[in-house]
Amino acid sequence: MRSLRNLISKHSGSDKKLINAIKNIFGFYPRNLAPYKLALRHRSVAQAFPDGKKINNERLEFLGDAILGSVVAEYLFKKFPIKDEGFLTEIRSRIVSRSNLNNLSRKLGLNQLIKTHFNGNKSATSIPGDAFEAFVGAIYLDKGYEFTREIIINKIITLHIDIEELISTELNFKSKLIEWGQKNKKEINFNLAEEKETNNKLKIYIVEAEIDNKVFGTGKDYTIKKAEQIAAKMAWEKLTNNNRNDQKTEI
Amino acid sequence: MRSLRNLISKHSGSDKKLINAIKNIFGFYPRNLAPYKLALRHRSVAQAFPDGKKINNERLEFLGDAILGSVVAEYLFKKFPIKDEGFLTEIRSRIVSRSNLNNLSRKLGLNQLIKTHFNGNKSATSIPGDAFEAFVGAIYLDKGYEFTREIIINKIITLHIDIEELISTELNFKSKLIEWGQKNKKEINFNLAEEKETNNKLKIYIVEAEIDNKVFGTGKDYTIKKAEQIAAKMAWEKLTNNNRNDQKTEI
Repeated sequence: MRSLRNLISKHSGSDKKLINAIKNIFGFYPRNLAPYKLALRHRSVAQAFPDGKKINNERLEFLGDAILGSVVAEYLFKKFPIKDEGFLTEIRSRIVSRSNLNNLSRKLGLNQLIKTHFNGNKSATSIPGDAFEAFVGAIYLDKGYEFTREIIINKIITLHIDIEELISTELNFKSKLIEWGQKNKKEINFNLAEEKETNNKLKIYIVEAEIDNKVFGTGKDYTIKKAEQIAAKMAWEKLTNNNRNDQKTEI
Repeated sequence: MRSLRNLISKHSGSDKKLINAIKNIFGFYPRNLAPYKLALRHRSVAQAFPDGKKINNERLEFLGDAILGSVVAEYLFKKFPIKDEGFLTEIRSRIVSRSNLNNLSRKLGLNQLIKTHFNGNKSATSIPGDAFEAFVGAIYLDKGYEFTREIIINKIITLHIDIEELISTELNFKSKLIEWGQKNKKEINFNLAEEKETNNKLKIYIVEAEIDNKVFGTGKDYTIKKAEQIAAKMAWEKLTNNNRNDQKTEI
């Protein structure tokens, strides 16, 4: 208790606020505050160094993303002992999706602690989720793998993630794509490009997903409905992948 | 020593061979042999179960891929304290690339232990690298994170991966793209789309990478050369991403 009082008393006001926030959100006291402060530092407030490197949370985000990915992988591996790797991969990607991590960051109140000079609504960006990942990296550096694993499972997954709901939310890429088209004034079409028969007399359908009459995705399956979903998923991934690349090339 | 003799003596011939191989390759004795046996079981020999699930190494590959990713992430994070996350991401993806893991699996001799009914040269497939990842998953289940981390760093990275060489192999996306164009009879062009000046009088160049007169990538940087690389990388990622999606939709 004395050492805890020392820990808090030797810190500045904003440090104390951060220490208390970590205790409130995650239930522990940090040993070393530096990585947590860095985790909350968006590149918009980073100081430029002579060699052009910047001090911001992006390296920690890289680390935290990996640690979070492996904790969630093991959690799902053990929770679903007879599900195949396709299922595990899909559910993990829903748990660690940017939108889910953004929500989490807001729910936990981490969002409010982020230091950023970003002008605009940061909730509409990936800033909250990135900071959440960076925070996981900070916990790992401060406390090690086992501790971080317990925090992620007991304070994040168990309390804030409804896995059954994530599973049952079937991702309907066709409606996502159509909705996106309406919002962005693009024409979305699905065409049956081909219909063929396999050796064992089953029909196979090939469907194309078009955006403004340009093919963005192709799907092949035994039902038109599934082929459409596959085509829509491919088109959706192209769209979201392009957006991500666009962001990366910004200086 | 007695318990070790017991461990070996109670196992069948092929189990003993596996125990000895693990000791020779990684320097430790397994506690529980089951996950290692599963890690070496390619889906081509898997037994079908009534519910359609199969017993093969794919779930363990999912787990091992995640554990390996996080150990390598931390290793690089600490080894390169001033490199940015773009560098860390790139070097990690080179370390865990399928071709690198395939090589590793062969170098370690893990390749020869894989049980598969695959007809043909398995070295030309991802089977060796997949089994390597599954093996990492098995070590984790048997021995925990810290132990697995030490094995990956001391027995794999330090002994078998030449990180300096991986770094110096500069990925030249412009030449990759031009080479691809020649092979596939596509016209590749790089256009300077825009040239502007920042507030502090630095020039910024925006370059587009075109395939058959269609823009596939855009790059922005302080030199034309770097902007071209960024544009070429984006175009390259679009190409390879499309190919990956095509494969997925094949029945």
